[in-house]
Amino acid sequence: MTHALRLAARGLGNVWPNPAVGCVLVKDDQIVGRGWTQPGGRPHAERRALDQAGPRAAGATAYVTLEPCAHHGHTPPCASGLIAAGVARVVTALTDPDPRVSGKGHAMLRAAGIEVTEGVMAAEAARLNAGFLKRVTRGLPFVTLKLATTLDGRIATASGESRWITGAAARRHVHLLRLSHDAVLVGAGTARADDPDLTVRDMGVVRQPVRIVFDSRLSHRPDSRLGRTARENPVWMVHTAAAPPDARAAWAGTGAELIEVAATAARQVDATAALQALAARGLTRILCEGGGQLAASLVAGGLADDLASYQAGALIGADGRAGFAALGLAALAEAPRLTLREACGLGPDRYSLWSFPQS
Amino acid sequence: MTHALRLAARGLGNVWPNPAVGCVLVKDDQIVGRGWTQPGGRPHAERRALDQAGPRAAGATAYVTLEPCAHHGHTPPCASGLIAAGVARVVTALTDPDPRVSGKGHAMLRAAGIEVTEGVMAAEAARLNAGFLKRVTRGLPFVTLKLATTLDGRIATASGESRWITGAAARRHVHLLRLSHDAVLVGAGTARADDPDLTVRDMGVVRQPVRIVFDSRLSHRPDSRLGRTARENPVWMVHTAAAPPDARAAWAGTGAELIEVAATAARQVDATAALQALAARGLTRILCEGGGQLAASLVAGGLADDLASYQAGALIGADGRAGFAALGLAALAEAPRLTLREACGLGPDRYSLWSFPQS
Repeated sequence: MTHALRLAARGLGNVWPNPAVGCVLVKDDQIVGRGWTQPGGRPHAERRALDQAGPRAAGATAYVTLEPCAHHGHTPPCASGLIAAGVARVVTALTDPDPRVSGKGHAMLRAAGIEVTEGVMAAEAARLNAGFLKRVTRGLPFVTLKLATTLDGRIATASGESRWITGAAARRHVHLLRLSHDAVLVGAGTARADDPDLTVRDMGVVRQPVRIVFDSRLSHRPDSRLGRTARENPVWMVHTAAAPPDARAAWAGTGAELIEVAATAARQVDATAALQALAARGLTRILCEGGGQLAASLVAGGLADDLASYQAGALIGADGRAGFAALGLAALAEAPRLTLREACGLGPDRYSLWSFPQS
Repeated sequence: MTHALRLAARGLGNVWPNPAVGCVLVKDDQIVGRGWTQPGGRPHAERRALDQAGPRAAGATAYVTLEPCAHHGHTPPCASGLIAAGVARVVTALTDPDPRVSGKGHAMLRAAGIEVTEGVMAAEAARLNAGFLKRVTRGLPFVTLKLATTLDGRIATASGESRWITGAAARRHVHLLRLSHDAVLVGAGTARADDPDLTVRDMGVVRQPVRIVFDSRLSHRPDSRLGRTARENPVWMVHTAAAPPDARAAWAGTGAELIEVAATAARQVDATAALQALAARGLTRILCEGGGQLAASLVAGGLADDLASYQAGALIGADGRAGFAALGLAALAEAPRLTLREACGLGPDRYSLWSFPQS
């Protein structure tokens, strides 16, 4: 199952709206087939592993990170495939919360006389597919906040200079992070200030993340890097009713998709409504790269799941720009407390990954 | 020498104004004596090791982290002691920059027919005794800044609540850090806000660090924790000419030592002048525990050597208090760039130790 989870992880960022699944077929203590969900979500992991194993699948044990699907979608159900191949035993980590599956896959296998063991490494599998699970069960995507700061928590000097606080290794790691997310999100201020293109460069990328701007009035320029490349790789502009008709027309003309959502009292994009709209379009994992106002609104709304911190050994001082806008805490006890998942060095910088408390 | 350096480190914080030295005597591949500078600076490491070895010192090799002293001070010179004991060979890491020694110790040993090898693990020894070396060569102490922040670089909420951002393990580690410094320093604002006592609790402390406040007008209350305990453990109040006579009298009445230094244009304690005055009194290692204004002035003045960062997995937001006041950088290229020395977890928090570029 550990190996199947590793295979599954290869799909993260590439398979939305589908889950990233891994499958390993073992027969007589030998691996006869390995598969993971392919870019775009198909073929499924089980299909790949079965095709690889061929006749050796008969009598094998299948380790699958998620309950095999039981419904006819674009592909025949994987449960049928495992039965047809004569697999003797199926070990799974999770029940698929998708109402079209949700136990039916396990039941189909058992009805065919296959021995089924459920819940093996369930916690690890739930972590891996947190985005898929959150989208299906709560209608929201998994959100990772990226924060690249100095030792005193600054993301830019007073004049806005931020290139570069962290070194080349950390910046390359950010591209890896983008690669494992379905979409990259920034606020309108960051889009205007940095004119980013938010693509993954090199690294064998097979599917670029969707590039999203929360921009209530569509104030970002349609002739920006995002606007100019919207036909090459998807750009989704999330705005409110306040966006003027000419800006809508100009952005639509670039090939970007326009998504109108509710506004907050402060006339910003309502983050909850926006994320619900993105989940409804199939996104399971979103990486938010700032700015401070957007990051603060996601934290204040309880919408953030992970925080990826890149810390450079530099100091800018209190006149520099903060990575998080005001959170308005009345007491220290209200501060969100995150738990550390991993930490390492990246060249001269430190990387650490933290998880928000589960809301 | 590695072992001698470990022994030497036991003296850090306990031996000022003397250097923390370690000595290991080896004869026939066996350690026959070990010594390190004792609390208060005497006896010296060599004397302790020789006393432990007794007659076995004859013909032994002495590994010493610093050139043995050659002058009669409170104790007879260690070089004479090594000669009298009949040591055959002396291996040292550093030449003592103290003009009363500075090569004379090595010369005395050689004149007595002892084989002397210099410069073994010199970089490690220089790092260990950076405080002593900086005081002797530049008239300034080694300064470590302590910074306990959230992931977004905040040290307190908007209302000033800071207990506790970090957990028990990190706070205990701070006491270890105090233990290895000669003195603990805070600014007047921090002293007034927190009413700290700045002592080391438990941990087998043998000599409490001197407690220092930079307080230009002596605004901290004489009936504070520091004032009430100034006769138990030393308190040094560093002020300017602007301190009113009644405050001077009240603080002198507590048993604290008053040190008047020059003021800056902003009527603050001049940090360079203050540190020079503290070095002149013998301090070699000072731990600055805040606040943000004092930390920024030490960084801006090029007076900081190390930064000990304790980072909690929490977020407070931009309305919280910053660990560093404004540094007024005109460009990102001016930001001080620190290099990482060590990093580890402390309960739920992360600790990392960074060094400022050598000025």
